[in-house]
Amino acid sequence: MRPSAREANELRPVTIERHYTMHAEGSVLISCGNTKVLCNASIEDRLPGWLRGSKQGWVTAEYGMLPRSTNSRMGREAARGKQGGRTLEIQRLIARSLRAVVDLKALGERVITVDCDVIQADGGTRTASITGAYVAMYDAIDSLVKDGTLKHNPIHGQVAAVSVGIFKNQAVLDLDYPEDSNAETDMNIVMNDGGHFIEVQGTAEGHAFRRDELNELLDLGESGIRQLIDHQNQALAK
Amino acid sequence: MRPSAREANELRPVTIERHYTMHAEGSVLISCGNTKVLCNASIEDRLPGWLRGSKQGWVTAEYGMLPRSTNSRMGREAARGKQGGRTLEIQRLIARSLRAVVDLKALGERVITVDCDVIQADGGTRTASITGAYVAMYDAIDSLVKDGTLKHNPIHGQVAAVSVGIFKNQAVLDLDYPEDSNAETDMNIVMNDGGHFIEVQGTAEGHAFRRDELNELLDLGESGIRQLIDHQNQALAK
Amino acid sequence: MRPSAREANELRPVTIERHYTMHAEGSVLISCGNTKVLCNASIEDRLPGWLRGSKQGWVTAEYGMLPRSTNSRMGREAARGKQGGRTLEIQRLIARSLRAVVDLKALGERVITVDCDVIQADGGTRTASITGAYVAMYDAIDSLVKDGTLKHNPIHGQVAAVSVGIFKNQAVLDLDYPEDSNAETDMNIVMNDGGHFIEVQGTAEGHAFRRDELNELLDLGESGIRQLIDHQNQALAK
Amino acid sequence: MRPSAREANELRPVTIERHYTMHAEGSVLISCGNTKVLCNASIEDRLPGWLRGSKQGWVTAEYGMLPRSTNSRMGREAARGKQGGRTLEIQRLIARSLRAVVDLKALGERVITVDCDVIQADGGTRTASITGAYVAMYDAIDSLVKDGTLKHNPIHGQVAAVSVGIFKNQAVLDLDYPEDSNAETDMNIVMNDGGHFIEVQGTAEGHAFRRDELNELLDLGESGIRQLIDHQNQALAK
Amino acid sequence: MRPSAREANELRPVTIERHYTMHAEGSVLISCGNTKVLCNASIEDRLPGWLRGSKQGWVTAEYGMLPRSTNSRMGREAARGKQGGRTLEIQRLIARSLRAVVDLKALGERVITVDCDVIQADGGTRTASITGAYVAMYDAIDSLVKDGTLKHNPIHGQVAAVSVGIFKNQAVLDLDYPEDSNAETDMNIVMNDGGHFIEVQGTAEGHAFRRDELNELLDLGESGIRQLIDHQNQALAK
Amino acid sequence: MRPSAREANELRPVTIERHYTMHAEGSVLISCGNTKVLCNASIEDRLPGWLRGSKQGWVTAEYGMLPRSTNSRMGREAARGKQGGRTLEIQRLIARSLRAVVDLKALGERVITVDCDVIQADGGTRTASITGAYVAMYDAIDSLVKDGTLKHNPIHGQVAAVSVGIFKNQAVLDLDYPEDSNAETDMNIVMNDGGHFIEVQGTAEGHAFRRDELNELLDLGESGIRQLIDHQNQALAK
Repeated sequence: MRPSAREANELRPVTIERHYTMHAEGSVLISCGNTKVLCNASIEDRLPGWLRGSKQGWVTAEYGMLPRSTNSRMGREAARGKQGGRTLEIQRLIARSLRAVVDLKALGERVITVDCDVIQADGGTRTASITGAYVAMYDAIDSLVKDGTLKHNPIHGQVAAVSVGIFKNQAVLDLDYPEDSNAETDMNIVMNDGGHFIEVQGTAEGHAFRRDELNELLDLGESGIRQLIDHQNQALAK
Repeated sequence: MRPSAREANELRPVTIERHYTMHAEGSVLISCGNTKVLCNASIEDRLPGWLRGSKQGWVTAEYGMLPRSTNSRMGREAARGKQGGRTLEIQRLIARSLRAVVDLKALGERVITVDCDVIQADGGTRTASITGAYVAMYDAIDSLVKDGTLKHNPIHGQVAAVSVGIFKNQAVLDLDYPEDSNAETDMNIVMNDGGHFIEVQGTAEGHAFRRDELNELLDLGESGIRQLIDHQNQALAK
Repeated sequence: MRPSAREANELRPVTIERHYTMHAEGSVLISCGNTKVLCNASIEDRLPGWLRGSKQGWVTAEYGMLPRSTNSRMGREAARGKQGGRTLEIQRLIARSLRAVVDLKALGERVITVDCDVIQADGGTRTASITGAYVAMYDAIDSLVKDGTLKHNPIHGQVAAVSVGIFKNQAVLDLDYPEDSNAETDMNIVMNDGGHFIEVQGTAEGHAFRRDELNELLDLGESGIRQLIDHQNQALAK
Repeated sequence: MRPSAREANELRPVTIERHYTMHAEGSVLISCGNTKVLCNASIEDRLPGWLRGSKQGWVTAEYGMLPRSTNSRMGREAARGKQGGRTLEIQRLIARSLRAVVDLKALGERVITVDCDVIQADGGTRTASITGAYVAMYDAIDSLVKDGTLKHNPIHGQVAAVSVGIFKNQAVLDLDYPEDSNAETDMNIVMNDGGHFIEVQGTAEGHAFRRDELNELLDLGESGIRQLIDHQNQALAK
Repeated sequence: MRPSAREANELRPVTIERHYTMHAEGSVLISCGNTKVLCNASIEDRLPGWLRGSKQGWVTAEYGMLPRSTNSRMGREAARGKQGGRTLEIQRLIARSLRAVVDLKALGERVITVDCDVIQADGGTRTASITGAYVAMYDAIDSLVKDGTLKHNPIHGQVAAVSVGIFKNQAVLDLDYPEDSNAETDMNIVMNDGGHFIEVQGTAEGHAFRRDELNELLDLGESGIRQLIDHQNQALAK
Repeated sequence: MRPSAREANELRPVTIERHYTMHAEGSVLISCGNTKVLCNASIEDRLPGWLRGSKQGWVTAEYGMLPRSTNSRMGREAARGKQGGRTLEIQRLIARSLRAVVDLKALGERVITVDCDVIQADGGTRTASITGAYVAMYDAIDSLVKDGTLKHNPIHGQVAAVSVGIFKNQAVLDLDYPEDSNAETDMNIVMNDGGHFIEVQGTAEGHAFRRDELNELLDLGESGIRQLIDHQNQALAK
């Protein structure tokens, strides 16, 4: 029995609110149960130095948790003077996932930065960030298509992410914090709308996991991501 | 004529939502027009080193702007590795304002930290932070009274803040960004519910201001703060 | 009775020594009683990146305290790896005050930086810095007029600053450290030679202050600044 | 055809030299082809603050690349003032992998730190680090068993790691740099001697990968790790 | 002919003002020609962590240059966020030189920190710092003897320093900036009142120097330091 | 009797392995007894900003110790976020020593960086670094001569370094760690192949040293450096 009484293959309720803030070219508040992440996509016309003259664009991401998004207050990274390893690891993952579905040459010489700021955390913040960031990025890039800056949309696929894990010897989908902090294995899966993998990251927190367990987790992840892609499409259809 | 078509002495619409996030002991989303600040108050039982053995508590604050809370994206302070001068100045102001209404000895050996994170900015973020932070701090401290940790509430006053300024030669209340960025004089006023001043900070951005202009601004500020204190009381009465 | 036996409206003895060090284009040691600040104004021909191509100049300031300018030794900010919030707040104030009397377009594409380094502290270091920095900046800019680089002096006003406060229920002018550390209200006032306000920053350290107390403080401040402007003029006349 | 003319399932030559430096309790130079990593395991008797009183030990790792371990010189992280995201990500991976085979309670109140410094890089530095770090950690802990400090060896499994990837549409084992920098999919696999997974991290660098490709990569990885575990055992038998 | 028209073996005029600032236990302004350094010695009763329980004290030093102590303005180290290599090297040298004449056990569990801040630079700031710092340290420690805290003075020698160098093929004493910036060899010599060496640091800036040149420089240095020790004694006798 | 049973004027066994790693233009592992330093020389075609347009090149050096190169583990400088004073001091010394034998104009607009990383430390790491760095720099620059980039070799001398000191009242050559940590005087000497001095740095760790002791140390240093230059030449002749 899961703490939330969900079925093993049951996602938490998902909501995706677009146009959440007024300044960003794409702005999405995604909620996966009690996990809430604000994803703001910004378009900037200047390139990082190492890309100048390359005739291509770039997509990047930054991730942060508000100090009291968590159960006990965490020190503010800006005050400590550096971003922790977990933060850097997560924002690199988000950025790679987004770049996997964008044609950077077709994007042109501009940078899309998606800021994923966790307002409230209850497990799965990095996967919620990816799922929400895709929608924010879509809206930002779509604004370039709509105003004629881009003739063709450089996005060539859709991306979403979910966590799976082994909790009390059972493979479960979309772990919340009580599950996540007690899971024996924790895996984050990023897939596109073609059902192919963009990123798979599995970690044994307790005992090492077997190949058949890995397969069960991948099956659960695939089913979850199909549903998340539907949620994205419903949000984008509004 | 103000860009927002408001009267010179008219506040923007104010909303104060309590219990906005689930983990913080006090959590308030305050909106002053399009300016939205999330104020989370946290209680921690350990004291900073310089207060150990002092038999008193402390109230502090931190302030941050989400990178895309503003019209063009600002670099993330955590990524740049330090908080800017404006950020430090604002969080020191918020903290002083809150401490002005709390009896630190009666609070006991604990720290209240109020994190003010700007979700969306349209001028007046520091004054909105103070007005919202008071309510978040109240809820946090009240939880200590309700659970019997504190016998008496150590809060001995109420605090709110507003900006005033001279825009196109007219004294106006509660400047939004289009006004703020063109004001000749900009003043932030922090007062308590007794109508006394906790902080007054006025800056000539254009021409130096005369004593009679200063008096007009103080009058406007007093009237605005009386209304904001009513908004706080209505929110706390719910 | 004030600890220094001064009258309520009495400044400490002021001395302003010009040409104090030999390298800076303007160099002033200002003493306000035991508070001594060295103000060095430097002219540099390169602009900060955000001003390039703007056909205007800039005036900025930096502030520091020698580690043993104070009663007990403070850690050196260079060794700690960052400037504290108080330092940043003060240097922003000094710079704004100086810019309020300079026509930046007429200054041309150059930067004036005034370094205010506290040699000995006894209260009022930020206001002494402003009063001394004006004279140092004047000498630096005047050297550009004298050597023909500038045809007209871009300084269009004079600026000085003083602290006032409520000590033992009495409004007093120009607080020294024993007063400052026990004041109920502390206010820094920056004015020009026309008697108008450039900056007003008042903080209730103890009880909140009333409107009539604020007015009394402003009166004291005005009288003090008139005297400081005389001191500046006497120094510049030598 | 692979650039190195190896078979798809062929590891590069592996050598594991123990007692490579004289001060560390465990010191191993591992070579996987031209990739050379020095792994030094240190025992320290003091615990990090958050573990004090917990009656358990800790295993951690740090990773670094010498500036000219790579084809073109990289800036020294110590000079830049911070460790990059990739570095932090890798050292977290190494540490998790080692902790997966150690009983931290049985280790007692001490810390094992394994420093993995890349002397020469040609792809696969993180997996070589894990494979070498296990042997260094074994030697360090074994010294505690041999001198009677520990009655039982707290290591309850063996761990090794290898990279696999899809290069020119073919799944290949143990990528060198020319393959790694052109791979469409890159996966790092960490397994124990029971054939179970400790960590699986797969990233689509080009096209997203299919489930059957993932399976092929996992098969290759399993076969490679079996051989690496043999290499470890041969080294430890000397 | 030296730019200053001095003889090869002639020091610049030296003045040593004691009790220069009012807070420090020892405070000295030393002038060697146009080089002026403020040396403040502070006594603190707490020890650095690594000395706790050692029943001995410590003497340390910090060095800084005011941004406009030099001909063109240098960036402030506090603003850049770190002390440069030259600064660290100099303050380590000053501290070693002072410790060479103090019995740290007899000093007891306290730290003497001597802050050497360069007010005006014209060559030889590090050697002036050492010569001045000795007097400031003497006054600070002497205050502990006078108030009975220490029964015996733990200072067992006197220390002073001077620069020598080869300028236009001639060995010269006490280089000023025009000489220093064009010297072929530059040497800093620290000696005690017994005529023995505490530190010798010679650097060929142009051609490598011969043994006989080195001997000539050492002779000059010895004669200069004898005079500086006399200056210290005269200052201390006042 | 020295702990190593060496004669007072006896160097430790020296080996210099060239082409130690495969990427660097010059790569040397130097061993002086148990002290082992990897010196990698890199050629880069871009100049630091302050040299642009100067029609000359630059030679610089960086120094680091692997965390467990020493008897007890030192914190990693990259993790602490800054290089310590000792590190900066040493790398400045190495760089000055190398520049003393290179004609920077003849080198052309490029930078040679020599990274000296201590693999194993047993005293004398800075002098071993200089001796090894010369050979690495030679190989790097020679590659520019061999491929025709440079017509003439801009190296106009040879440089090597050794430590000398007073251990148990006897002057000894090439101190190992047991001697170094107990020496009364410690001196590092850098000389060229003409027998002239490039750098002399002597420090009294215990009692101040006399002129005759200094002379004895210089004699020992000269004899050691002659041998080290022979070792360099033999290595370069292979």
